[in-house]
Amino acid sequence: MAQAAGQSWVRLETRPDEYRHWKLAVDGAVATLTMDVTEDAGLSSDYRLKLNSYDLAVDIELADAVERIRFEHPEVHAVVVRSGKDRVFCAGANIFMLAGASHAHKVNFCKFTNETRLAIEDASAHSGLKFIAAVNGVCAGGGYELALACDEIYLVDDGTAAVSLPEAPLLGVLPGTGGLTRLVDKRRVRRDRADLFCTLVEGIRGRRAVEWGLVDKTWPTSRFAGAVEQRARELGAQSDRPASGPGILLGPLEGAVEGDGLRYASVSLAIDREKRVAHLTVRGPEGPQPAVVDEILAAGDRYWPLRAFRELDAALLHLRLNEPEVGTVVVRTEGDAAAVLATDSVLLAHRAHWLVREIVLHMKRTLKRMDLTARSLIALVEPGSCFAGSLFELALSADRCYMLDDPERPAAVALSGMNAGPLPMGNDLTRLQTRFLGRPELVDELLAEREPFDAPAALDAELVTSAPDALDWDDEVRLAIEARAAFSPDALTGLEANLRFAGPETLETKIFGRLSAWQNWIFQRPNAVGEKGALRAFGAVQGRPEFDWTRT
Amino acid sequence: MAQAAGQSWVRLETRPDEYRHWKLAVDGAVATLTMDVTEDAGLSSDYRLKLNSYDLAVDIELADAVERIRFEHPEVHAVVVRSGKDRVFCAGANIFMLAGASHAHKVNFCKFTNETRLAIEDASAHSGLKFIAAVNGVCAGGGYELALACDEIYLVDDGTAAVSLPEAPLLGVLPGTGGLTRLVDKRRVRRDRADLFCTLVEGIRGRRAVEWGLVDKTWPTSRFAGAVEQRARELGAQSDRPASGPGILLGPLEGAVEGDGLRYASVSLAIDREKRVAHLTVRGPEGPQPAVVDEILAAGDRYWPLRAFRELDAALLHLRLNEPEVGTVVVRTEGDAAAVLATDSVLLAHRAHWLVREIVLHMKRTLKRMDLTARSLIALVEPGSCFAGSLFELALSADRCYMLDDPERPAAVALSGMNAGPLPMGNDLTRLQTRFLGRPELVDELLAEREPFDAPAALDAELVTSAPDALDWDDEVRLAIEARAAFSPDALTGLEANLRFAGPETLETKIFGRLSAWQNWIFQRPNAVGEKGALRAFGAVQGRPEFDWTRT
Repeated sequence: MAQAAGQSWVRLETRPDEYRHWKLAVDGAVATLTMDVTEDAGLSSDYRLKLNSYDLAVDIELADAVERIRFEHPEVHAVVVRSGKDRVFCAGANIFMLAGASHAHKVNFCKFTNETRLAIEDASAHSGLKFIAAVNGVCAGGGYELALACDEIYLVDDGTAAVSLPEAPLLGVLPGTGGLTRLVDKRRVRRDRADLFCTLVEGIRGRRAVEWGLVDKTWPTSRFAGAVEQRARELGAQSDRPASGPGILLGPLEGAVEGDGLRYASVSLAIDREKRVAHLTVRGPEGPQPAVVDEILAAGDRYWPLRAFRELDAALLHLRLNEPEVGTVVVRTEGDAAAVLATDSVLLAHRAHWLVREIVLHMKRTLKRMDLTARSLIALVEPGSCFAGSLFELALSADRCYMLDDPERPAAVALSGMNAGPLPMGNDLTRLQTRFLGRPELVDELLAEREPFDAPAALDAELVTSAPDALDWDDEVRLAIEARAAFSPDALTGLEANLRFAGPETLETKIFGRLSAWQNWIFQRPNAVGEKGALRAFGAVQGRPEFDWTRT
Repeated sequence: MAQAAGQSWVRLETRPDEYRHWKLAVDGAVATLTMDVTEDAGLSSDYRLKLNSYDLAVDIELADAVERIRFEHPEVHAVVVRSGKDRVFCAGANIFMLAGASHAHKVNFCKFTNETRLAIEDASAHSGLKFIAAVNGVCAGGGYELALACDEIYLVDDGTAAVSLPEAPLLGVLPGTGGLTRLVDKRRVRRDRADLFCTLVEGIRGRRAVEWGLVDKTWPTSRFAGAVEQRARELGAQSDRPASGPGILLGPLEGAVEGDGLRYASVSLAIDREKRVAHLTVRGPEGPQPAVVDEILAAGDRYWPLRAFRELDAALLHLRLNEPEVGTVVVRTEGDAAAVLATDSVLLAHRAHWLVREIVLHMKRTLKRMDLTARSLIALVEPGSCFAGSLFELALSADRCYMLDDPERPAAVALSGMNAGPLPMGNDLTRLQTRFLGRPELVDELLAEREPFDAPAALDAELVTSAPDALDWDDEVRLAIEARAAFSPDALTGLEANLRFAGPETLETKIFGRLSAWQNWIFQRPNAVGEKGALRAFGAVQGRPEFDWTRT
């Protein structure tokens, strides 16, 4: 994204030749991601990123690298995550950054790092990419949480290298980047061992780390690199990704800052700062679209679903990180619904192809990012919109959806196979299944309907919240948006975080719904962030924190 | 419980003839619980409980009444929850109480009310008791959350009576007593309707409330009482509870304040205030115990499992509400393990009898209360202890369990059928299943072993965390307790809330893990509790709240 000079926006786009903290090297089927953080190249000069500690700038590069491996290097089947520093894997999130950050930044930083870890697990579960953490030394806090996101963790056995989650004893906060959930739910570490582990500042090393399931194996230093490499080749051999490239290049997003907002090729974001409302518009495909895989490969990052959802992803992150006071996002679409449905058909027909699979998975992750965006989402279905199939997921993701009922200027919504499974929420249900929890027969009926729904039909089918006529439309929509903007932003965040995730919980929803919520709570508590709280006391002259001992 | 004069402890025991806020009337198979709150009889004189609003004092009576219906009135098959006030069902938790309460009190108040609502649902699911909310007027916030806990909700159709969850728009907090979770997960209200409903201060009435699934039916005022009564009789007719009484009387707990703590017949609580540690001891059954149902009925509330778990429940609530600075609970048992196992056998053999069923369900609820107690729990298995069967659940509930390995003075633990299903956690798994998540075969193997485990065997079977020998015991246990006491109490609360609940989530765990965590967060936020926050602004002279609009 082109950045206006002088703006203090967090820059979200990057590429390997601009990385300051990671190196991506590809050697046949195995890629190596080397973390080698440049101390003075964090987002702020207020802290130094010592010992491979990280801030958002470091994690933006990691997220980018994982995306590029998926799209640009289909020949890669396994990824080794290692450190470029001697005897240090990663010391976790930078504590001085956390101690100095605003509450909103801390929360959004954690959310993004959580999403990045889940993107690694998504690649493992669905893309045929396996990840190995090669832990050569200090592996603390967020460093170990990064390792936990990998499929396998190997620890050098040198008598000192250890994994640890010292947040609670050292900093008075949680291992909140999924650490606690992954310990007991992914690696199924026994809860009493997990409790002991999470209170040991020095962590656990060697054989005990293996016995407790904290790592998969240890090797002595002399054999470590070779054994990891061999294991990566073994894991990679099971992949169903192509034997060779090329992939497609993820070029810079085409677009520019426009006024207070953004205008990309298929996505626009306009900010009404006075009302604290963002108008997000996604435009459907225009002109001839690829129908077969070769055409999709040729279109590359200009293929509409990839381009539009990459732009949508960027817009959502921009909102989160750079527009903290925008409380409501009004979601619109523009374009030809038939063209969206035709594209859906092509994606569904060719899902077995690696690139189409990656595109659909990327769409899925972007929609999950939307579900987790702590802003009120109001979708407006108007004439000329194209809330069809995959784009109807935007309406389903919204907290409410208003559809204009005007026989003179009819609007329509439509479903496709993309609403039936390929784009599940974090709870592993589709948005339709979540909407109609306990009414699976209704979901099937709706999916069987291949004709578009006009406003009365959509309301009758319970696909939209309200369908005002032309006379009421302006008032009803305006009132909904204005009323929303007057409510406590915190109450809305909590409300939405609960209502959006009906039904089962998964490791993913547990991380965002349970672990993050407790971490957010702790991030507000004087025992963590107060003058004498543990986060502030760490490394400070005054030394030990002072706690209010009240247990809640 | 006998209260020392002059102590400001919250009094947890009550009985119907002492109620100030509820009336319990039994008419054959239908009991009526009438809420008629005495305005000036709350826990504090700082607020008045207008419009059937409630504080902890009101909810302690409700919790007591539900227990008494279960044990004292087995002939009751359905319960109508109604109001004694004209055109007001219940206005919810008292806002002035919330605005003035400490954070710890707010959190513990919400936890207790959530547990009370879940106890109602537990009676419905497992005890053959159905609950009807007869909503005659204003039913707002916690009032509607109480109704949501009932099986069916009936609303008078008088043109004004409405149900509402106005917390977010009015007070800047959440409907945190299970409201949000029950809306979408229990009643399966569509999420966009739930969103709309939760932002409408005036709520929803009449036909729309029925259409949206917010209530089950409406009746005009003239027919309301009769229709509710008839429906209660219908529901009650399906119950498997006895056709007639008598039940058993739940007498006052026998015991007294002892020093800083409590000493009941089977449970003691000693407070080490300097170390902020409570020593909780549960004594096993002594002397001859009932072997058949008639003997259990004759023993009544003196029957060991009922007495011991009622006392344990009281001790846990006392800790939560009256000992906020005690951070660690050291859990011990004393007595004859064989006697505990024999009692378990009797309970299992007679589970089909209504009273035995109630006793086992009460044990289950008490252990859930333990799982949800935000204190570090460390179980010590020493010589003379009786961590066997149902009492071994205490060890499984603990964050860690230390067992002395001393061949001279052997200690033992043992399992019984009570570890195999009757006492599940909130996640619907047993504590053994949760401990060995993903290793069901190990659970089966352990349950097949009917011999006690000595320390090496228990360690080998992974039933305890650590088994130090006599030489190390004192130091290891002391260090574990002392280290714990030095950590941030908030970090520990968050850590335990995550590690204790591996595996699936249920409505119950979602309420405590997701909804409560978000509510706790909001209860710390200046937008709610700051000088100009919504909770403080409500009803105050200054009027409207002022928000920091940053979304997180």
